[in-house]
Amino acid sequence: MTQNMEIICVGNELLIGKTLNTNAQWMAKQATAMGIAVNRITVVADEVNEIATAIRETLKRKPHFALTTGGLGPTFDDKTLQGIAEALDRKLTVNTEALKMVKEKYETYAKEKGAETVELTQPRIKMATLPEKSKPVSNPIGTAPGVRTDMEQTVLIALPGVPSEMKAIFHETVAPLLRQASGTTAFYEKSIYVDNVMESSLALLVDKVMMDNPDVYVKSHPKGRENKPHMEIHLSTTAEDAGGAEEKLQKAATELSGALRGIGGKIVVCGD
Amino acid sequence: MTQNMEIICVGNELLIGKTLNTNAQWMAKQATAMGIAVNRITVVADEVNEIATAIRETLKRKPHFALTTGGLGPTFDDKTLQGIAEALDRKLTVNTEALKMVKEKYETYAKEKGAETVELTQPRIKMATLPEKSKPVSNPIGTAPGVRTDMEQTVLIALPGVPSEMKAIFHETVAPLLRQASGTTAFYEKSIYVDNVMESSLALLVDKVMMDNPDVYVKSHPKGRENKPHMEIHLSTTAEDAGGAEEKLQKAATELSGALRGIGGKIVVCGD
Repeated sequence: MTQNMEIICVGNELLIGKTLNTNAQWMAKQATAMGIAVNRITVVADEVNEIATAIRETLKRKPHFALTTGGLGPTFDDKTLQGIAEALDRKLTVNTEALKMVKEKYETYAKEKGAETVELTQPRIKMATLPEKSKPVSNPIGTAPGVRTDMEQTVLIALPGVPSEMKAIFHETVAPLLRQASGTTAFYEKSIYVDNVMESSLALLVDKVMMDNPDVYVKSHPKGRENKPHMEIHLSTTAEDAGGAEEKLQKAATELSGALRGIGGKIVVCGD
Repeated sequence: MTQNMEIICVGNELLIGKTLNTNAQWMAKQATAMGIAVNRITVVADEVNEIATAIRETLKRKPHFALTTGGLGPTFDDKTLQGIAEALDRKLTVNTEALKMVKEKYETYAKEKGAETVELTQPRIKMATLPEKSKPVSNPIGTAPGVRTDMEQTVLIALPGVPSEMKAIFHETVAPLLRQASGTTAFYEKSIYVDNVMESSLALLVDKVMMDNPDVYVKSHPKGRENKPHMEIHLSTTAEDAGGAEEKLQKAATELSGALRGIGGKIVVCGD
């Protein structure tokens, strides 16, 4: 059974259009490549209620995995852990293991500066204050640990919003978990680029190719205009067996290319 | 009262990480600049149920505006109007005004090619098949019209996913509507860039500045690492009066800059 995932991005900067949501795309692409279906991406503000509501809604849909990004830092507006605690009706408490991780980071930073003592201020302790029954996930390059919460149906993992830290934790901890869950399942894709065919003329051809190739999803992406058409047609499939997947994609691509040529399309087939 | 908005992006390409969601950022930035608060961005697949569910959830939260983008074209996987119809429990019917718009487009395209007749095929008629009580919105540069549905609490507008078409309809139809709703309200912002202050040391200063300046929202964006800190601190406010807003931002920025210098921060203040 295909594993699925939801992504929740926390941050006012995404809702005011200050920041382009490259994190969501990156995470979606990684998960998809491993054969995990990403069903929904939700962006909410740095407000406990908003975060808690989004998490509750996501957990109700019972995805195998839910990843959040953003809101784990030391400042007052880093509220993701409060949101998770509220959504799960759990208390926030200082987690010994997380506190050890945070403390070691500041000891390293202090040594770099030649300072002797490390002050574990409230904002620093905040990064080690987790919902009960949650576990910290080591952050190889930053200070705030990720936070993993296992529920009956869903593994919820909170990642930082700083892209380099999110990616480092993803590679080290999330990716192996996803790979284990999805087994040999992976995502395969191929694009055909075609000029000279209007999207509206393409519609019936695509319908037929999808009927004939039930495992292949075909989607047209218009790149020009309806009257000066340049189109990418994207074929994809998620499968356990690479050889079979490639074969299915190739069969669908060949059928579609033939049909497109039949209505005057100029084609460039692009592997992958 | 501040007007608010939700954005729903429809498209598998966003969920597989093939496409970076620049549409959501662009729309959020435009709306924010006009003083509209964007509360949530939701990305869902090209599936009627997924779209309908997201729209129902959004409408329950009663935003003043809900914008969708994607899924208005002629192919089978353009399902946004089906999703809206299902969410509102309305029938889909061919809309005379929309059909006229679509027909005129294809007549123009035919003339460009020297063709005499235009065939209104099923995929073309599909773009003029709207939920009952919805109205088409002219698409100045593409074929599929936008679709506006007025409800008691919310104006729902469906826009195409092709960025140039989405932007053209937004400028021509959505922006004037938003401006009228928000009046003179606008969004004002200023950034301070500071080196040499850890985010965890900043936290308490930011708390104090926000207490002293209740209309100004302050958010730190770490750009370096906790131990080699380079930080953008973003100050923003939404207000009806430009002069007052600038004054409030400047007061908060001055207070924050002073406090940052007090703990060894090296500052560049950036107007904007």
